[in-house]
Amino acid sequence: MSEPNYLHAPLSEVDLRHLLTEIGKKARLASRAMAKASTQQKNTALLQMAMLVRSHASELKVANAKDLAQAAASGNDAAFIDRLTLTDQVIESMAVGLEQIVILQDPIGEITNLKKRPTGIEVSQMRVPLGVIGIIYESRPNVTIDAAALCIKSGNATILRGGSEAIASNTALAKIIQLALEKAGLPADGVQVVPTVDRAAVGLMITMPEYIDVIVPRGGKSLIARLMKDGRVPMIKHLDGICHTYVDDEADITKSITVCDNAKTQRYSPCNAMESLLVHVKVAAKFLPPLCKIYQDKGVELRVCRKTKGILAAAGFEGMSKLVDAVEEDWRTEYLAPILSIKVVDSLDDAITHINTYGSQHTDAIMTENSSHAQQFMREVDSASVMHNASTRFADGFEYGLGAEIGISNDKLHARGPVGLEGLTSLKYLVKGDGSIRV
Amino acid sequence: MSEPNYLHAPLSEVDLRHLLTEIGKKARLASRAMAKASTQQKNTALLQMAMLVRSHASELKVANAKDLAQAAASGNDAAFIDRLTLTDQVIESMAVGLEQIVILQDPIGEITNLKKRPTGIEVSQMRVPLGVIGIIYESRPNVTIDAAALCIKSGNATILRGGSEAIASNTALAKIIQLALEKAGLPADGVQVVPTVDRAAVGLMITMPEYIDVIVPRGGKSLIARLMKDGRVPMIKHLDGICHTYVDDEADITKSITVCDNAKTQRYSPCNAMESLLVHVKVAAKFLPPLCKIYQDKGVELRVCRKTKGILAAAGFEGMSKLVDAVEEDWRTEYLAPILSIKVVDSLDDAITHINTYGSQHTDAIMTENSSHAQQFMREVDSASVMHNASTRFADGFEYGLGAEIGISNDKLHARGPVGLEGLTSLKYLVKGDGSIRV
Repeated sequence: MSEPNYLHAPLSEVDLRHLLTEIGKKARLASRAMAKASTQQKNTALLQMAMLVRSHASELKVANAKDLAQAAASGNDAAFIDRLTLTDQVIESMAVGLEQIVILQDPIGEITNLKKRPTGIEVSQMRVPLGVIGIIYESRPNVTIDAAALCIKSGNATILRGGSEAIASNTALAKIIQLALEKAGLPADGVQVVPTVDRAAVGLMITMPEYIDVIVPRGGKSLIARLMKDGRVPMIKHLDGICHTYVDDEADITKSITVCDNAKTQRYSPCNAMESLLVHVKVAAKFLPPLCKIYQDKGVELRVCRKTKGILAAAGFEGMSKLVDAVEEDWRTEYLAPILSIKVVDSLDDAITHINTYGSQHTDAIMTENSSHAQQFMREVDSASVMHNASTRFADGFEYGLGAEIGISNDKLHARGPVGLEGLTSLKYLVKGDGSIRV
Repeated sequence: MSEPNYLHAPLSEVDLRHLLTEIGKKARLASRAMAKASTQQKNTALLQMAMLVRSHASELKVANAKDLAQAAASGNDAAFIDRLTLTDQVIESMAVGLEQIVILQDPIGEITNLKKRPTGIEVSQMRVPLGVIGIIYESRPNVTIDAAALCIKSGNATILRGGSEAIASNTALAKIIQLALEKAGLPADGVQVVPTVDRAAVGLMITMPEYIDVIVPRGGKSLIARLMKDGRVPMIKHLDGICHTYVDDEADITKSITVCDNAKTQRYSPCNAMESLLVHVKVAAKFLPPLCKIYQDKGVELRVCRKTKGILAAAGFEGMSKLVDAVEEDWRTEYLAPILSIKVVDSLDDAITHINTYGSQHTDAIMTENSSHAQQFMREVDSASVMHNASTRFADGFEYGLGAEIGISNDKLHARGPVGLEGLTSLKYLVKGDGSIRV
């Protein structure tokens, strides 16, 4: 395998536009062949990718070492370097991930909703690829493989734009992907990595609806907000996860403690971790002290309303170091850290109103043994995932059985919540007649 | 019923923004109640609307007369005045349309895809409203009733912005809609008409994603293109319909003549009328002369490729007055008129490539008795509707059995093709556990 090339320096505006237009045209052309590819061809490409990732592990690590040296020289922190590093373990998990996508059912070509109409025509819908998917992501090079694999399986062409810090790793991975596509009889241009460190490439990608059908941004809130501001291409995007658990007056206290502990502390950084806890006033005195004891032991800072403060004071938490008065801003904050806001509410209606006002329409849960309370909550809370007696941490493509996840969507149009292969597809109408005409 | 009010003169930018912000806030609030409404409440509102439209026919015509007088004074043409006029027949058909929407199944609350996961949680999806729908349309006031009714039935709040020429008619209709909502115990703000002739209101609506979840523009290509340029709110939009029929080498000639006649001449102005005819070279000499005789008799102008011209010359069409050499631009033109472009192609593959290159991804048909040719065409033509042995004129919500249609979408994300009630909804995930935690 020859060493992959990419452009080290920023380009002139004209050259960059030319580069991206060429990539766009090639992707559009390749998307026709990708859409026609058989399940076997797509699976062959994925298995070849798995094989090549393993057999080229040392070349990948050499390319990755360049990125790591550059990143260290630029003074990036340890967490950043960690996300950027391709260890043997990361490489093996990319290969295993590919093999898992092979097993998933091919969504393309499925025909549903067949109806015979009074005019004699037969109308149905066929699942088809979206066309060209643009993926914009940050430093993890394994996204290059994961995202490309999901797009290949769903019959789409892909343009990948990873962080410029991972350019050597990503172009090396692209080389492998393109080799695998060719071995499966598919066009190498079915997956392209934008081969430049020039950050202006992102700004162009999001304004090329003629070449890119949908952008999937995978990254932090500030990246997404920036893309939303300037984007002309539709996006499947995830902004933030201000997830709530509401503990109802008819909640089982023991279950609720277990679930609220898990929702907050199992991991702090994922978007589906609980950030705000609402407790019905009738159970607050019984429920909050034992739960807050657990949080205290795990070092979770609590930002609480006045009623919560009173209850905790009465229970002897007065001197707790990590106990803070909540301010308005806390109700709209995604901490992604060992911090939790807590509010006592007077009713289920108040809880629902609070969530619909301050939440981010991501994932919200109710703890209750009363099924009509649960039903009201599930129906009226306007979020992508609503849960009953379960930890918000379940909001995830794998947990939902989607097999894999290209991202999570906060939007209501197209895909909502965790987005699997089906979210990368669309439906077209098929009409079959026998010389049928409209009268 | 008191006379409805609206603003005759353009507003200052500050006042207009204030007006639309207030409308947006009220719509957002009302959307919660609309989402919770029972099927019975929604149907009551629709039946009340039908009753009130009929019983207030004379008031509606008085309001409409104001618009008509203004439109005539402004020198609008007869076709424009015709679209604007509320006759007894138009009023009755609005009422009948409402009764038809009552009969449609309520999509909201339906639960699908229930799965029990290995972790013990049950995952399913519930159909929910989108929230607030903005409808931007031109002079026909009956759209006010049709669009409001579909949004009510699908549990959404609606902000309607019709043509400023129909402002008196639309505010009178809005009054009726709001009265009907109140009679059904629903908030009057569930449907609001923007009460100003100021055209800048449209520019604000399409940049208020905090209040409007989706915009449905119903109007000509130039309106849509302008909205796309500046819009920040997702749109369910229809651009153009450059619809093709491809007559294959294995087509039944008699069926093909009947269907191609219907697709072009049954009506000239709809977006699903055929604009471009592709004919396999093997059948062109046999097929084109009899069909073109029909077109000639109906006064259809033909813009043809060189091969077509040769075939028609040989068949004695030489002196036909409406026979023109096609230029490149013809292949990308939506005539919406008695004009048709015709091209002879060498193969099915060439036909597919031509359609995917010059078409508008709206509706394209193949005439063939060979089912594998049909399958290839249906799969590879990248359009919202693909048809086999049927007239493109069937591409329509009513013909497809959707019951009613809010619009037709050229997009691939969310809804594609004719959009019925389901296109105004989304799915949310429901997760049910029993104190379930993620490990």
